[in-house]
This record gives sequence, structure tokens and C-alpha cells, in this order.
Amino acid sequence: MSLTESTPEAAAKAAAYSARNLAVLSVDARNDALTTVYDALKADKQAILDANARDMALAKQASQDGKLSSSLIKRLDLGRPGKFEDMLQGILDVRKLPDPIGKIDLRTKLDEGLEMTRVSCPIGVLLIIFEARPEVIANIAALAIKSGNAAILKGGKESTESFQTISSIISKALDSTQVPNAAIQLVKTRDVIDQLLDQDRYIDLVIPRGGNELVRYVKSHTKIPVLGHADGLCSIYIHDDADKDIAVKVVVDSKCDYAAACNSTETLLVHEKALKSVFPSVAQALLDKGVTLKCDAPSKAAIANLTSNSGGSIQDATEEDYNTEFLDFTLAVKTVPSTPTPTTNGHTTATSHASEDTALDLAIAHINAHSSKHTDSIITTSSTAAEKFMSAVDSAGVYWNASTRFADGMRYGFGTEVGISTNKIHSRGPVGLEGLTIYKYKIRGSGQVAGEYGEGERKRRFLHERLDAVGARKAVGSWV
Amino acid sequence: MSLTESTPEAAAKAAAYSARNLAVLSVDARNDALTTVYDALKADKQAILDANARDMALAKQASQDGKLSSSLIKRLDLGRPGKFEDMLQGILDVRKLPDPIGKIDLRTKLDEGLEMTRVSCPIGVLLIIFEARPEVIANIAALAIKSGNAAILKGGKESTESFQTISSIISKALDSTQVPNAAIQLVKTRDVIDQLLDQDRYIDLVIPRGGNELVRYVKSHTKIPVLGHADGLCSIYIHDDADKDIAVKVVVDSKCDYAAACNSTETLLVHEKALKSVFPSVAQALLDKGVTLKCDAPSKAAIANLTSNSGGSIQDATEEDYNTEFLDFTLAVKTVPSTPTPTTNGHTTATSHASEDTALDLAIAHINAHSSKHTDSIITTSSTAAEKFMSAVDSAGVYWNASTRFADGMRYGFGTEVGISTNKIHSRGPVGLEGLTIYKYKIRGSGQVAGEYGEGERKRRFLHERLDAVGARKAVGSWV
Repeated sequence: MSLTESTPEAAAKAAAYSARNLAVLSVDARNDALTTVYDALKADKQAILDANARDMALAKQASQDGKLSSSLIKRLDLGRPGKFEDMLQGILDVRKLPDPIGKIDLRTKLDEGLEMTRVSCPIGVLLIIFEARPEVIANIAALAIKSGNAAILKGGKESTESFQTISSIISKALDSTQVPNAAIQLVKTRDVIDQLLDQDRYIDLVIPRGGNELVRYVKSHTKIPVLGHADGLCSIYIHDDADKDIAVKVVVDSKCDYAAACNSTETLLVHEKALKSVFPSVAQALLDKGVTLKCDAPSKAAIANLTSNSGGSIQDATEEDYNTEFLDFTLAVKTVPSTPTPTTNGHTTATSHASEDTALDLAIAHINAHSSKHTDSIITTSSTAAEKFMSAVDSAGVYWNASTRFADGMRYGFGTEVGISTNKIHSRGPVGLEGLTIYKYKIRGSGQVAGEYGEGERKRRFLHERLDAVGARKAVGSWV
Repeated sequence: MSLTESTPEAAAKAAAYSARNLAVLSVDARNDALTTVYDALKADKQAILDANARDMALAKQASQDGKLSSSLIKRLDLGRPGKFEDMLQGILDVRKLPDPIGKIDLRTKLDEGLEMTRVSCPIGVLLIIFEARPEVIANIAALAIKSGNAAILKGGKESTESFQTISSIISKALDSTQVPNAAIQLVKTRDVIDQLLDQDRYIDLVIPRGGNELVRYVKSHTKIPVLGHADGLCSIYIHDDADKDIAVKVVVDSKCDYAAACNSTETLLVHEKALKSVFPSVAQALLDKGVTLKCDAPSKAAIANLTSNSGGSIQDATEEDYNTEFLDFTLAVKTVPSTPTPTTNGHTTATSHASEDTALDLAIAHINAHSSKHTDSIITTSSTAAEKFMSAVDSAGVYWNASTRFADGMRYGFGTEVGISTNKIHSRGPVGLEGLTIYKYKIRGSGQVAGEYGEGERKRRFLHERLDAVGARKAVGSWV
């Protein structure tokens, strides 16, 4: 690992070159490097905390001057109980994950003596841009090494001291491993993000780890594919046959478990016929938690008699509320009419194709038009309605009678999470190590040429015989 | 299907809406639509050929005026023997491919009664931009319908008449099927490519089907992911222990089988020690085919006594030749030194890390620096060298003793090919129907909430039990 002050282009070029040497390392060599990094960070804990304390002092001053938010200070603080240990444990967690590289998922006998395999391999060079959290350096360096990808790390200025200290330690530690020096680079030069984002010739994937603004900035300033999401506008639809207890439990958790998270629910759609049967109990539970409900006219009328002793309130919704990620104890509520014609209270339906639609279709159409394609849930006792919802809603996560808060790499059983993607290609939803891999096709022959094959009389025909891909790895040898 | 003259934004929005209705159609409904389209095109063959003849007349006039290339006229001509039938057969071929939608590749029991599945689904809306070939309309419409994706098709102006006629027939045919009207849209308005490329809110993937210039233009004018490749700079490396007969056979096929194809070889790298043992036979065979060899000094010296009776020649290579996709009977030849130091004839090695490298490493480094990451092959009798080459070369296809011309969807056994991708994420190499799919995570529960799970004493633990995904589809029901 090197702590580079070279130009962004030189850094990217060196990373691209090193990536190919990292790509051929055995999983043992990659795991050994993780052990070495773990030991080095553990041994130098005090130096890291000292550096972090210097960052914290500057940040606290900036906060007092009103230049930094207190939440950023919290994220910056590596001295909080358990945080340093969590950072170290994260490296061990990544080490024990199965090797994502060299997995064969397709094996075809093209002809006798001509075999094709599709093998997972590293993507190449990752650019990771992160804000305050210093522990992300260790976390991402571990994921990159494990997946055989070179990485360029660019941190935020608030964590400069922590960043440089952790970097130096990791850099020194890696010198005694087989991981090539330039495979993990830490760019400390300031104000080079735009120049890094221009290196589409050398960098294959950008992963912004930070707030929505950072992600949005990155997405609009690069041709390199970006893994991440700027918005998390999740919705829950309560169908007319919803179980009331399930609706209460799931909606309260989805809104209140951790309102600032991207997988929290921001919009509640309620079937017209559930306004009186199910919705009041849901609304009361939310009001009791202190949630502000921003309702359209029919849903507001249905709960006109409810009150909150916990600071919750009932307000009128605007159209903009259905496009808003509140990240707070606020929930937009919209009624889905069960009749196919638009309602007459000025509220328009979600689609102009109303004549063909049922309430379920209208809910699906609303979500597809307004959600950020992150995670959406339906509460219903009908498997037909649930399965249609899950097929038709175009989001990375589609749930039936479950909280949107389940959208998370740890909860999915993926181990450490690279991020949650709302992209429509490559990786979707919570992304684990697998999302840092792609595949290549290998063909092993003995002089076969394409001109031999074809339709003519003297031509050979392809066999295209599908071979068992499971366990193929060991048979192929150590290089896969 | 609709033949639209609406604005690009309106077309894209309508496609996005329809995509969700197309996404839930059963494979039978999608296959039935393909049958209907096939029957309709077959019945109206004469009308299509008449329209194509009108395009041809205009194109021939333009060609005589020097405004169109003769190769474009060849691509435009649907009246060539077998071409119309091939177009029709292509629809049947797509119909008989396995359904790419609804495949479960991961199934996890998160907890009792809380199951997660990862299911393949359509990407959403495809934008296909193509040049002259009128048969692409039928081909791409078939692929889109089969994969459950909405598609917006934009053709080139030379095929306007053919395009409108084929479109009208397909459009009318689809009216009697379950495929939604706006799911396949044919944009005939001219000069709207830039506006279509701006619709990243509604369009999920662009597939340019045409020459390198079109692909390059599209890639630099859109934020939408692009599936395709602008260049096909493939290389072959002859190792010192290469079998001479295999080298001759593979190199000749890779260069001469169809020189204008993207999977033809453009650069030949020769191990210094193979210059006398293997290279002269390869060079003679290429010269006999009429190939022009653009050689560096050592390789030129090795074949100084050879001649060609077929128009081939031996010339000096420039550095630019190693970055050139000739698409013709021209091949750049470069010697790979077996000594770790740079040679003294002014020829520089491919890397500045020469002291650590073997010839194999230098060949790999040259390919990673110069190739377009399409397909590269090594000729060697050493499995160690071959496996290292295939792991370290960062290309979609990496072959051992086989022609680069095998890089093709039909040859890989994928059936109809969407294109060949040199991207590093999502789909790589020849892309079949699978490349038009992504996945979503479905969770089926009974009111579980995230707040119930955790480390505390009263908290539930996730089971994360991996279930058998094979055959899971039928068990889940008709909506998957």
C-alpha cells in the first residue's frame, strides 16, 4: 500500500497495473495480508486514537463555529467504546468470508478437447470516496484485498489525521505481504476528486461511502459506473385484506426502528377499504411513537379523532411529500382508491390508465413512479396480491408482510456490506463481496479454429454440452 | 407495439410504465407474442421486400454520389438469398430459448417463516439504436419480449422504409397479444438520439447495434449504462514453447477467418526465443494469405528472407500499430524479450517494472495496456504459463491454444447474441438473453420486523440457512 501524492492519473495507472498482480494472488496470500493488517492496527491502537483525537479537536472547534454538524463528529469519533474493536473485527469477518474469486458458474464442452468455463474474477480498480468515518479505510481495504481488486481511497478532510495514521500503518504492514505496493493507494492530496472521477480509462467502479449529497455529486461527475444509491424512498402498501396486527407491527418498525436509515419507510399507501379497518390502529401506533403523518384528504378523515401524547401530529400532505425522503419521524400517507375512476376530491390517481387498473395496480404504479427502487413492502393476506406486487414493483427489495428495514447486507447474511445499490444492472440491493467481482470466459483448446466449424459438409459442429460446474474448481488446478 | 412520433421523454415514460406490465407476463404469453410476430412477418414478406427495395434504390443512388459505402448497402439489403428467412428463424430461435426470467439463484431462510429469494427479472427499459440492418428490428424486438423488457427502437435513416413497414406489421401483430402496446416502441422521428440518451430516469440500458463510431458516440453522450464495445483489439501471444502447427493454425484463423470482425486478432506478440523456431512458419502462412505484417526490428529480422505471392508484405511497425484495430489483412507483430532488461534497439518494454518480469509477464502487461479487453489468446504447451495468462489478462475472453474468433454468442452456445460487451461490470463477452436480466430480492414473512433481531438477550438471531435454490421455482408458484 502506498500513501501517494502523485497525480490522480499516475495513481490510477499504477493501480491498474498492480491490479493484475493482485488478481492472481491465492486466497491464502490475500487472507494472510488481512491478518498482517489486523495485527498492525491492533499493535498501533494508541497512535491511531491519538491521531483521531487531533481530528476530533479540530472538528469540535469547527462545530462550535457552526461549520460542522454534530452527527459528523459522532461519525468521526474512533474513541467511542467498541468502535476501534469493531473496526478490527471487521477485518477478521472479511477474512473468513468464502473466496469470491475463481468460482466457476458455467462450464461447457464446446467440442472434444475444447472446454469453456466462466470464472469469477476481480473487477479491477475501485475508487472509494468516503467522508468522515475513519474506520471505512480499514473496512474497504479489507474488502478490496479479499476480492482481489486494487483500490484508490480518498478520504474527507475532517479525518485527515486519522486517515494518514491508519494508512501509514496499513501501508507498512502490507510491505511484508504479497499484495503489490500500488494495489491499495491512499490519496491524500486534496481537491482531486474530480480528477480521479475522470480516470475512466483506469478505474472500473466508484463506490462513494457517505451522505446522499456525496453520492449525487459522484454520479453526476463521472463516466465510471457508480455503485451506491443517493436516495432511499421506501414505501409500504396496506391492501384491503391486510392483517391489522401485522400492519401495525411492520409499519411502526419500518418507520421508527431507525428513521435516518435509507431502508426506513417514507410513504404509506392505504387501500381505500382499509382506511377504517386497519389504518386507524397503524396511525395511532405511529402517533404514539411521535410520528408526524402527512395525509391526503381521505386518510386524514379516517383518523380525524386520533391524538398523540408523544409529539406526533396529523397534517395535510402535499404532492412533494410523496417524493420526499424524510429520514425523520415523518410519514406521507396516500389513499389508493378501489374504484377504477379518479376520486373527485382533487386527488389524482397514480396513473392515466385507471380504467384497466385495480387498487393493487394503482399502488404498484405509484411506487414505480415515486420510489427510489430501493425496497418496498406489501401487507396483505392474499398470496396472489403479494406475488403480483413482488413481480411488478421494480425495486431491489420487494417484501410481503415484512419490514423494509430488513434491506441490509448483514441481515441478508452477506457479511460485510459494500453498500446498497439501486442500480438496475450489475448489483442490486445490499452488495457483499460478490458485487466486487465480474467474470471472464476461459477457453482451453489444442489448436481449434473457428473456421473449422459451421453448417457445411466438411465442417465440425459444436457440441455445446453443459458440464457440471460444481466442484469444477479443484479439477481445473490452482489457477482458476 | 406502437410506432411513435411522441417526444422522446413521453416515449420513454410510457415504456417505463408498460415495462412493469410486460414484466409480469408468463413465458407462455411472451412466447405466444413471438409466434404472432413470426406469422405476421411471414405473411407480409412481399410488402417488406418492396419497402426494402425502395430503401435500396435511394441507397444505391447515394452510393453512386459517393455518400454511402457499398458495405452499408450490403447490410441494408433484405432481398439477399436467405436473409429474410434468417430473420424469421431468429424469432423462432429466441422463442425456444429457456425463460431467463424468474430463475432463483439464492434462497435463504432468514428465520422460521421468513424466507428470502433472489430472482432474475427484466432490467426494465432498453434503448436500442441501430444503423442500416433492417432485420435487427425483428431480432431485438424478439429478445426484448422474451426477456420481459420494454424497448425503444431507433433505426438509421437509410432503412426508413423497411423499418416503418416491419414496425407496422409487428405493431399490428402485437395488438392481438398480451404484450402491452407501449412496451415496444419504434421511434421514427429523426434526430432524437441525443434526447433519447438524456432519458436516464426512464431508460435502464442502451444497446447500440452498429459500427464503432455509433458505439463511441453513444458512450460519450449518455449517463445510461451502455452494453457494447467500441473496439475489438485482440492479441495472440506465442510463448517460447509453443507448438508450431497450433501457432500457425490459430494465428491464421484469428487473423484471416473474417478480418473485419471484432474478434479478429490485430496484434501478435512473439517470445524472443520463438522468433526463429515458430514465428517464420506463422509469418509465411500469413503472407501466403496476403497479410501485411507490421513488425518491430527483431521480428522483421527473423523473417527477412520470406516473400509473399499473394500480396502480403513485411513492413516496419510504429507504436501506433499496437493500438490499431486494422479490421483488415494487416497484423502488428511485437517481440517480447526474454531477458528482464529493456532491449537496446530503441524498442521499449511494455512496463517499467521489467526487473521483476518474465517474458510472460511482459506479454500480459502489453495486452492489459493495449488490448480492448475483448479476447486474447496464448499459444503454449505449458499449462502453468497458460493458466497464469488466463488469470492475469484482464479481458472478457482469455484462451489457450484456441482462435480469438471463438468469441461469439452462437459459438459459446448462448443462441442469439445481444452483442459483445467489453464492460467490466454486469455482462462481459458475448451477451445472450441473460445479459438483459437483473435480479431482485423477495422476502416473504408474516409480520417480522428488524427491531426484533439483534445481539441482546431478548432479541432473535437470524438463521441465515441456505436453502436449495434448484427447482425452487415451481414450489413458489406461478408468480416468481
